[in-house]
Amino acid sequence: MDGIPPALDENELVRRLVSIGWRGSRAVRLGPGDDAAFLRGGLVISTDMAVEGVHFRFDWISPEEAGFRAGAAAVSDLAAMGAVPEALLVSLAVHGDPSVAVELQRGVRAAGDRVGVAIIGGDVSRSPGPAVVDVVAVGRARTVVTRGGGEVGQGVWVSGSLGGAAAAVTAWSAGTEPDPRARKRFAAPPDRVPLGLALSTAGLACAMIDISDGLVADARRVAGASGVRIRVDTGAVPVDPGAGDLNLALEGGEDYELMFTAPPGAGSRIRALGQEMAVVLTRIGRVEEGKGVVLEDDRGRHSAPGRGGYDHFAGGTP
Amino acid sequence: MDGIPPALDENELVRRLVSIGWRGSRAVRLGPGDDAAFLRGGLVISTDMAVEGVHFRFDWISPEEAGFRAGAAAVSDLAAMGAVPEALLVSLAVHGDPSVAVELQRGVRAAGDRVGVAIIGGDVSRSPGPAVVDVVAVGRARTVVTRGGGEVGQGVWVSGSLGGAAAAVTAWSAGTEPDPRARKRFAAPPDRVPLGLALSTAGLACAMIDISDGLVADARRVAGASGVRIRVDTGAVPVDPGAGDLNLALEGGEDYELMFTAPPGAGSRIRALGQEMAVVLTRIGRVEEGKGVVLEDDRGRHSAPGRGGYDHFAGGTP
Repeated sequence: MDGIPPALDENELVRRLVSIGWRGSRAVRLGPGDDAAFLRGGLVISTDMAVEGVHFRFDWISPEEAGFRAGAAAVSDLAAMGAVPEALLVSLAVHGDPSVAVELQRGVRAAGDRVGVAIIGGDVSRSPGPAVVDVVAVGRARTVVTRGGGEVGQGVWVSGSLGGAAAAVTAWSAGTEPDPRARKRFAAPPDRVPLGLALSTAGLACAMIDISDGLVADARRVAGASGVRIRVDTGAVPVDPGAGDLNLALEGGEDYELMFTAPPGAGSRIRALGQEMAVVLTRIGRVEEGKGVVLEDDRGRHSAPGRGGYDHFAGGTP
Repeated sequence: MDGIPPALDENELVRRLVSIGWRGSRAVRLGPGDDAAFLRGGLVISTDMAVEGVHFRFDWISPEEAGFRAGAAAVSDLAAMGAVPEALLVSLAVHGDPSVAVELQRGVRAAGDRVGVAIIGGDVSRSPGPAVVDVVAVGRARTVVTRGGGEVGQGVWVSGSLGGAAAAVTAWSAGTEPDPRARKRFAAPPDRVPLGLALSTAGLACAMIDISDGLVADARRVAGASGVRIRVDTGAVPVDPGAGDLNLALEGGEDYELMFTAPPGAGSRIRALGQEMAVVLTRIGRVEEGKGVVLEDDRGRHSAPGRGGYDHFAGGTP
């Protein structure tokens, strides 16, 4: 229909969906296209859908773990805005056995408990196919940190380590058991809400995003929204010990760590904040003039990364 | 798991999910269990999931119609609270062809346009099975009309007519084409936002619900939440001309009309409001002491209705 190529990639499709749905609104301070929308009155809201066979499989993780993961992923969008979670809503579709819905709900509840919020609504349906968990995260903020605040001269930072979740998926896809540390990165994404809030409040995050589709893919989104180029020093990228592979750290998704740009000279304050919050914060690059993302290795060799990031429309199970 | 019978019905499952997810919250004025949740600050929020093969089929209606229907159903939950819509979010899962996502989004957008709101966020994923549309409706209200306001002596009213959507599903399921009026009732649920708001503002709705699972099933919810019995005069129930079958009007779901209870003696004000808003409002019964729903025909014969309402876990396609 409408000349849309069947191979339309996820980014293109999202752009298309946004352009169809969005036409401005007085009630809305920040519309679609960032990690979450920001409404008049300070409400921040986002929705995140996980589909069995695409985002998770029940021979990889239990229904309760899948629910936790979906809840944590939804909350991560609030963290990336510097917002404080207030409530979750959960829509579930499950095959014949309703106990799967119960286990999924328990997992989402646990993710809510971790950040102090309850599930205030939702929906449940039978599914003739995969299980589906769609979690709506509602939060509040006085101001939000968008993807568009990157400016030339800023540093680029990430929290924690990257590539663990992708390493787990790689192992499962090869029919082997993942390293337990990698498995945990997939099944239980970290809570970065306190960090996102602290960075926002202290003015240490100018642009911010959660790394859901891979460092390179998400850095490219920040670069695009900010109208800048992001240079990544690949030698500085904190590779998860459960991954042990730089490519997984660069291109693998679903780690739900935060990437942010910070004012020049803020390094010592950021490191102190990280120590205080017991989260490793690593400077991995800088913001330059230009567009897109460039990778630079320890010897100063440059490369343009591949498309980067997991594309849910590229086919196959992750 | 946990001794949950595989045949757990939808109401039982919903109760179970609510009890898992809900534990009170200072941020929340009304938690799960009604048509929508109500937050401190006046926000009203609900989510409504439609699954291909359960709620709709693409050989019945087009993707754009399915999107419209999902959007209208989500907005209907706000209408039933007397809230004013402010924004929608849309999560989509589709098979290989992303153009289906585009058409679904167009349909949801049209449902948003009808009530003056945009789509401010969402998510999209590939689905290895059915298409899924989950619509989050966000609105505002100063006060909300819950399901729990029914009191003995009140009248019970419905908007519009009932059974049309179920008549369309019945025809499709029998391999025939539905009456065009019934088809329209399924594909394009009415906008009852202005009515819900007017009834709430005028104090004419004490308890209110949108009829999504059938008059009897939804009346039973109001009776349960209010701690009363609802007596329905079956001869008064407005049967949709596209249905022509009282049972469909009593038991068939998905009409998305409003059912409400009103103060004694409010009949003439309600009829005047209906005339002003060009919506037929019909008194179909009354609130009594007791519990559940009883049906009474024109000759005064009573009957206890069946379980009533469509159960998405009862198996089979609607």
